[in-house]
Amino acid sequence: MMNNQSAIGVFDSGVGGLTVVRALIERLPYENIVYFGDTARVPYGVKSRNTIEQFTEQMVQFLMEQNVKALVIACNTIAAVAGERVRRLAGPLPVFDVISAGADAAIRHSQNGPIGVIATTTTVNSNAYARAIAIRQPNYRVISQACPLLVPLVEEGWLDHEVTRLTLREYLPPLLAERIDTLVLGCTHYPLLKPLIREEIPDIPLVDSALTTAEAVAYELEKRHLLNPTTQTPDYRFFVSDIPLRFRAIGERFLNRPIDQLEMVSLG
Amino acid sequence: MMNNQSAIGVFDSGVGGLTVVRALIERLPYENIVYFGDTARVPYGVKSRNTIEQFTEQMVQFLMEQNVKALVIACNTIAAVAGERVRRLAGPLPVFDVISAGADAAIRHSQNGPIGVIATTTTVNSNAYARAIAIRQPNYRVISQACPLLVPLVEEGWLDHEVTRLTLREYLPPLLAERIDTLVLGCTHYPLLKPLIREEIPDIPLVDSALTTAEAVAYELEKRHLLNPTTQTPDYRFFVSDIPLRFRAIGERFLNRPIDQLEMVSLG
Repeated sequence: MMNNQSAIGVFDSGVGGLTVVRALIERLPYENIVYFGDTARVPYGVKSRNTIEQFTEQMVQFLMEQNVKALVIACNTIAAVAGERVRRLAGPLPVFDVISAGADAAIRHSQNGPIGVIATTTTVNSNAYARAIAIRQPNYRVISQACPLLVPLVEEGWLDHEVTRLTLREYLPPLLAERIDTLVLGCTHYPLLKPLIREEIPDIPLVDSALTTAEAVAYELEKRHLLNPTTQTPDYRFFVSDIPLRFRAIGERFLNRPIDQLEMVSLG
Repeated sequence: MMNNQSAIGVFDSGVGGLTVVRALIERLPYENIVYFGDTARVPYGVKSRNTIEQFTEQMVQFLMEQNVKALVIACNTIAAVAGERVRRLAGPLPVFDVISAGADAAIRHSQNGPIGVIATTTTVNSNAYARAIAIRQPNYRVISQACPLLVPLVEEGWLDHEVTRLTLREYLPPLLAERIDTLVLGCTHYPLLKPLIREEIPDIPLVDSALTTAEAVAYELEKRHLLNPTTQTPDYRFFVSDIPLRFRAIGERFLNRPIDQLEMVSLG
């Protein structure tokens, strides 16, 4: 049975969600964490709603069988497209997602200029950030820009490369022309580009939804008395649907620590 | 039952194989074609051998149920990793693949300098081109370079963009330093970059495996008396495991003509 020593379940279409795990480990150092990354079928950003919902359901089911005490959707595409589905499946479990956390933080940072969002094509087309922000503050404008090349650039490791800089100079100007006063990094890969983005637009505050999601989890688990009361070394387990060649190297770059317990599980 | 009016079955992990369909239509204008693209699970280039073999088996099964008269592996990753598996499943059906065709053409073009190959990470790590060339000409050297960013650049449509040019200037110099005298475009997305690659390395002949595969199919079907004897307008049917948002737009860019009969089929 689930109790306050149970793990937090975090899931993503691939490795990106490890930036959220990293933020959770830093913010809540005594919590156990189970991660699922659907690396056999990544990326979700280019797939249809039906397919994404079906794949998501399989991951949620797997994590609930591990008796997690909370679910964290560490993938903007899943949050945008299948967030409702996850909440229905989760029943009484608290569900957190990077879009809700990002929307809350964006509203805290923004003065009155429009809020800029960069994300994958599917996240942008889902209009999820605009909706999440409109629910909270109907008078805030949101300007979005799809950036399909940033994920492969991060996975190539070109975090400080001229090609990445030039790519940002294609993607960012349309947002700057609208005079955004806050920029939401609407994809879990993008926190690794923060230094380069800061160099390009030093005056605009960046919302890193990995950090803001960890903050939201900490706040809500405490309110519900669900924080782990023990202070033993916690357990981190990583499940993936495939272990591709460079998985460990890329994953550890995202997590910023070694991945010890890695296991492959077939879904679907 | 299969006969010489049956369709040629072409398959790929996604849209890239449509460059092979395009070459087949131009080379063999009376042949019926059935295409399968596993768009729900694309890209294969970052997945493990087991996963790729399992997905491939499902596609081959589907095409054989359509009574195709030949199978064309229009994906370098599948050819590299699961070519043997496909041939076992195909029984007496002729099986063609972009790697065999590319290796044959590379040997025809190369004088005695090493042969360069650009491809996805998985194709390069599989060493499939080096093996295919070594079987044919043991004394030819092969130098390979993984280019994981080129597929997303092609799909973004940046075919003549400064970012793509700079990316090529990262990927090509290690090959030039080895003094290659032929460059194999070892991914079905890359033919769309031919003009830009030609500008960068005007003196090195390029092997476009879509064209060479179509050539191999024409030769072998004629030899086996399997060419379609009728000259009616042929039938082109396109099956995919998912229809993502920009599929038709991207697909038609690859195919260079409208996609009329498009149908979604769930595998696995």
